[in-house]
Amino acid sequence: MTPKKTENALIELIERTFGAVRSKALVLAVGDDAALWSPGPGYEMLLTCDWFLEGSHFLREKHPPDAVGWKSLARAVSDVAAMGGKPCCFLLSLALPASLTGTWLSTFLRGVRRASNELGCELAGGDITQQDKILISITVVGEVRRQNAILRSGARPGDLIFVSGTLGEADLGLRELQRKPGMARASDSALRKHLYPQPRLELGRWLAGKHLATSMMDISDGLSTDLRRLCTASKVGALVDASSLPGVPSAKAADARELALHGGDDYELLFTVSARNAARLPSRFRGLRLTHIGEMIPKRKIVLKAAQGKYEPLRPGGWDPFRKQSPQN
Amino acid sequence: MTPKKTENALIELIERTFGAVRSKALVLAVGDDAALWSPGPGYEMLLTCDWFLEGSHFLREKHPPDAVGWKSLARAVSDVAAMGGKPCCFLLSLALPASLTGTWLSTFLRGVRRASNELGCELAGGDITQQDKILISITVVGEVRRQNAILRSGARPGDLIFVSGTLGEADLGLRELQRKPGMARASDSALRKHLYPQPRLELGRWLAGKHLATSMMDISDGLSTDLRRLCTASKVGALVDASSLPGVPSAKAADARELALHGGDDYELLFTVSARNAARLPSRFRGLRLTHIGEMIPKRKIVLKAAQGKYEPLRPGGWDPFRKQSPQN
Repeated sequence: MTPKKTENALIELIERTFGAVRSKALVLAVGDDAALWSPGPGYEMLLTCDWFLEGSHFLREKHPPDAVGWKSLARAVSDVAAMGGKPCCFLLSLALPASLTGTWLSTFLRGVRRASNELGCELAGGDITQQDKILISITVVGEVRRQNAILRSGARPGDLIFVSGTLGEADLGLRELQRKPGMARASDSALRKHLYPQPRLELGRWLAGKHLATSMMDISDGLSTDLRRLCTASKVGALVDASSLPGVPSAKAADARELALHGGDDYELLFTVSARNAARLPSRFRGLRLTHIGEMIPKRKIVLKAAQGKYEPLRPGGWDPFRKQSPQN
Repeated sequence: MTPKKTENALIELIERTFGAVRSKALVLAVGDDAALWSPGPGYEMLLTCDWFLEGSHFLREKHPPDAVGWKSLARAVSDVAAMGGKPCCFLLSLALPASLTGTWLSTFLRGVRRASNELGCELAGGDITQQDKILISITVVGEVRRQNAILRSGARPGDLIFVSGTLGEADLGLRELQRKPGMARASDSALRKHLYPQPRLELGRWLAGKHLATSMMDISDGLSTDLRRLCTASKVGALVDASSLPGVPSAKAADARELALHGGDDYELLFTVSARNAARLPSRFRGLRLTHIGEMIPKRKIVLKAAQGKYEPLRPGGWDPFRKQSPQN
């Protein structure tokens, strides 16, 4: 039986874990009613929040607490990458059973701290309470130079569609995790991508700084679901060439295609570039593959060019919490 | 059986409920990866977040959905009031069962919208997912003129302690709600304060603008718990005169004292003023009573001057989610 701690004692543990504030912009962090933040001149602020819930997004008995910590912050930071911004600070709302306020909590906090250090995003505050399930909600504040943010709404017909990295790898990792007994380990690249995803911050900022992308978002719910959102926001349609998808090489061909189209949790960037500018895009950006997978079309449909040149509608088959069962069911 | 809706359909419902963005500072709201925000020159931003969870903070069968909506935003905005700031925009993280995405959700959203309009705090974004319980996490962004924010840490020995309004009234309302069968209604002022609390925004901004308060916070967990936090942050102690507490007139004397000392959810302001400046404080601010309840002392103890001039330690007896049972147990 873990001894019960008070809310104040838990707040002190969090303060100790994260240490003193380093950013000059963050003049006051944890320990008051609100944090104080001053963005630099010429910058706009980015605000985004993300749920990370036991049973829906992770399983207590399968996901190591430090991976829960890393991923809860990394996936929220990915939304800042998707706007071409730089993360600055975050608020951590945490609810958990009193029995987890010992080792589980301190290991979780170490995972959050590692993400905080590596992604350059400082803890600014939060709220902690007790619940029977582990609930995490993270708000990230970022900044982007005025006029540089890349929105979902800027794609035009004729723009080429690109994705970074490999699609479907995190979902393959989730399948491995579900198949193997016990607590998961990052024993291969698929499991590593599922447990410790890397938001594409450098690529997002480079695309924003060069004004290369006409629209952008991150792929969190799967290409088929997220591309539809990009098209809706931009009021265009899309044609995707199935043969061009950067799927997982180790999976069987049919599997790799399904994973690449519908697999969630990759946190790769999906972006469009005008045909005129496409030649300025390298095939790799600091080692990360950039793949041309199709183009935007005026007709508001999403079409997949499949094998033997057959065209078929691409239906949203990615993650939708209101349609799918949670991974534990 | 409510038909299942997709996540996209629910996001559209939220966009429709809140309508177009009105603030010039908020250049992009719901519908992209992150919101874009530009604070005015000479201002600092305030960032705060608050849980509002079924079972811990409200009961589905007792709390009307529009009160859940109002209160979830109002209590987060109260943290901005407690810094002397002005609320600007908020992010709504919502998780709920698919069966509540019909009437419950639209009534809840109307409550949030009313608070949003009355408190001047626009929806900037959020995240929605499915869960078996209703989970709400709200992040509020506010602004305050540089150097004007009132922190918890500024109280000095000799400063006088003040509170706004009446203490313990919301807790009395909670007791009534627990006693009466069925869905609660705001049938008297105690129930109204429990269901639809009013953050003390005008008072907070006035105190900040006049540089009158040396420290401030809002009373969300009860005076005995929150005063201790103020003292810890300011590295001082406090002496509170029990006979001066602005308790609920309708309650019995002993009850009124307990409610005033330990009752949570009032969202009144607790602040300190130097002895020199205390005469500049009116006894009422725009109809809201301001009561002198004690003073800060150098010795780091919290002492209550009780009946017959007896002094006793004031132990934290307010709401602590890690010590107390939730209201449904």
